[in-house]
Amino acid sequence: MSNLDTMPGIDARRLWSTLEASSEIGATPGGGLRRLALSEEDRAMRDLFAFWARESGYEVGIDRLGNMFVQRPGTDPKAPPVLMGSHLDTQAKGGRYDGILGVLAGLEVLRSLDDHGIATVRGIEVVNWSNEEGARFQPPMLCSLVFAGGASVEWALDREDKSGVRFGSALEAIGYAGEEPVGGRELDSYFELHIEQGPVLDETGDDVGIVTSAYVMAGMRIQILGQTSHVGPTPMHHRKNALVGAAYVAVEVNEMGWRYAPEDGKSSVARIDVSPNLPGLLSDEAQLYIDFRHPDPDRLDAMTADVEAAVTESARRSRTEISIAERWGFGGLRFDPGLASLLTRQATALSIRFREMASQAGHDAYHMNNICPTVMIFSPCKDGITHNEAEDVDWDRTTPAVELLFRAVLERAGRADG
Amino acid sequence: MSNLDTMPGIDARRLWSTLEASSEIGATPGGGLRRLALSEEDRAMRDLFAFWARESGYEVGIDRLGNMFVQRPGTDPKAPPVLMGSHLDTQAKGGRYDGILGVLAGLEVLRSLDDHGIATVRGIEVVNWSNEEGARFQPPMLCSLVFAGGASVEWALDREDKSGVRFGSALEAIGYAGEEPVGGRELDSYFELHIEQGPVLDETGDDVGIVTSAYVMAGMRIQILGQTSHVGPTPMHHRKNALVGAAYVAVEVNEMGWRYAPEDGKSSVARIDVSPNLPGLLSDEAQLYIDFRHPDPDRLDAMTADVEAAVTESARRSRTEISIAERWGFGGLRFDPGLASLLTRQATALSIRFREMASQAGHDAYHMNNICPTVMIFSPCKDGITHNEAEDVDWDRTTPAVELLFRAVLERAGRADG
Repeated sequence: MSNLDTMPGIDARRLWSTLEASSEIGATPGGGLRRLALSEEDRAMRDLFAFWARESGYEVGIDRLGNMFVQRPGTDPKAPPVLMGSHLDTQAKGGRYDGILGVLAGLEVLRSLDDHGIATVRGIEVVNWSNEEGARFQPPMLCSLVFAGGASVEWALDREDKSGVRFGSALEAIGYAGEEPVGGRELDSYFELHIEQGPVLDETGDDVGIVTSAYVMAGMRIQILGQTSHVGPTPMHHRKNALVGAAYVAVEVNEMGWRYAPEDGKSSVARIDVSPNLPGLLSDEAQLYIDFRHPDPDRLDAMTADVEAAVTESARRSRTEISIAERWGFGGLRFDPGLASLLTRQATALSIRFREMASQAGHDAYHMNNICPTVMIFSPCKDGITHNEAEDVDWDRTTPAVELLFRAVLERAGRADG
Repeated sequence: MSNLDTMPGIDARRLWSTLEASSEIGATPGGGLRRLALSEEDRAMRDLFAFWARESGYEVGIDRLGNMFVQRPGTDPKAPPVLMGSHLDTQAKGGRYDGILGVLAGLEVLRSLDDHGIATVRGIEVVNWSNEEGARFQPPMLCSLVFAGGASVEWALDREDKSGVRFGSALEAIGYAGEEPVGGRELDSYFELHIEQGPVLDETGDDVGIVTSAYVMAGMRIQILGQTSHVGPTPMHHRKNALVGAAYVAVEVNEMGWRYAPEDGKSSVARIDVSPNLPGLLSDEAQLYIDFRHPDPDRLDAMTADVEAAVTESARRSRTEISIAERWGFGGLRFDPGLASLLTRQATALSIRFREMASQAGHDAYHMNNICPTVMIFSPCKDGITHNEAEDVDWDRTTPAVELLFRAVLERAGRADG
């Protein structure tokens, strides 16, 4: 590895300029991005990404779910390619970097290989996964899920947004309903670079996180049933206010997060829908969406038991009927140890300060881990603020992660003379 | 008063049939009514009400806010008339009786006077107030407020519903933008019959409530400001989740209601608006609408202090900024003692079991009380369930209130030979 220091790397300024261009598409007044999956903004960003790719001489494959694959061939057409990437869609009031950095870093890796005239044995591809955020179509990571065989293409095409628009119709409307099959082909490996979305690297001063595992996450939709009645004359002992039932659960879930915080557990209440939600009326129905995560699956089970107890207690105190109407979860996985040690070795050789860590957010890599060796690289973000218009990165502190991606993908793709 | 027992009364069957006809206009599958102010359903009900009035030979005056006045002249055209009525609009999922009973009972009083050939010195009018519920245009009791000089006609016409439709435009669209001035004329008195909207009469078995006063009510919009961030990696001590802040306030407000319940105080949390309210994101803003009431204004001040303390404590526990963004209130009034004792005397003479009580809901009568002698009569409703599709009354237990209205209005209008 002694030649690493003298090897050519990426063009950080070029990568930065692509990120700046991305930041113009769906820009919000608050300095962030609103680029919901399959929106006109998503179309514009996809068009620009495809333009850059084709301008650099790469083919762009598009599958039936709109997943985009920018392809740089290797010298051995039969060898399964190395894949890297993330997603270009954002939250409703998202930031400029999130998954975007991972896609554009992938493009930068390809361009840098060309700059330096480096050929690889294996092909290298950059993917832009459709609808990672789940801000428009549920669930998040929808299209990598199907790619990895976790659900059918038809099921995904039938997902509907809040207005009842089908995923399939929205995809056709923006011209990204491709013809390639979704998944079902062999891959050498998958690398995903992403901003950390937490404050650890910002606080420790480390350059990159080598992500070896993922927190286990549990999501639930809590349903609260009460009874409408007039806010005025209804005595307290006649009330069954669904909104109050939801509030008790929300407080309990939040308190639980603090109890598990010393072990790095956390819990969230992130959405409430109340009906009829009018000032003069107690509500007869509420839906509460909660989410909790823990590094240790056994402790997540303990949190689940706490939530179940909180549901019972909240129903008692609010005199409503409360049930767990839906449960989901992800995480609790280990990424490929071979790829993690490759990253460790490369980081050490490059004098990059790294720390091994666990991912706490959901990522397309979770699904890819089921079908090929997969690993993630985190780069720092300021104060851990993400999914927020104020999301920001320090460019000097971002470059090491992209350099590491470049070296790791190059090693994995099998270096050959340029 | 010895002749009261032999005096003719109302035709309960006819009144019941008008209520049945009303129950068909805007009927919901759950057996209730959805007849939002100035909707097509409201138009249809107004048309039917005006048809009945004109069929019986009464003039129907309509003012610039769509308030409808059915007029039965007296023998002295210069004597200010007696007014009675309520409202024909409903909540989004309201019941069949609410204010409707008060308007149609008024019509029945006029018709019964005609049946028996009774002339009165003073004219008698029945009013249908526009937008009492406030389910579409805020605030509730909007048009009696203006009638009583509490706000300008132009301000009311400019109120907008959730979709941005102006009150004035909606009123024109249904053809009820009249030309008569709003208020500004002398009235002898105002009587409002309404279902109780609480369980007291149903539980005590009394026939009517003679409403001598009104609970004081305080409403507040609580604003919670937080910060968006990802539900996954954000540690507990970095979170400022507006939804959690709102939940703490909601729980505290509800607990307060139980503390004051032994004194018949109560508190409500009846609406929450959260932004961005997405499953993957902590919220940066929430608005919570609360409402609390007490028979004693001094104790309401104590409740207000409790809410202010709860706001401070909830902000601390949720790490958000919480403030009382808006305050309003009504009630805390005494109705006219002369009219109340008139009702007591008549009820006694008719052997109607009555109890004096305080109104807890808002009513148009509150505004009318500012400009003329005003009183209310309550009739029982089953289990105190109102503003609910299941709202129900027992007809035999409703008739006494209408009889009492008939006798009281007749006495007040000054009986003359028929």
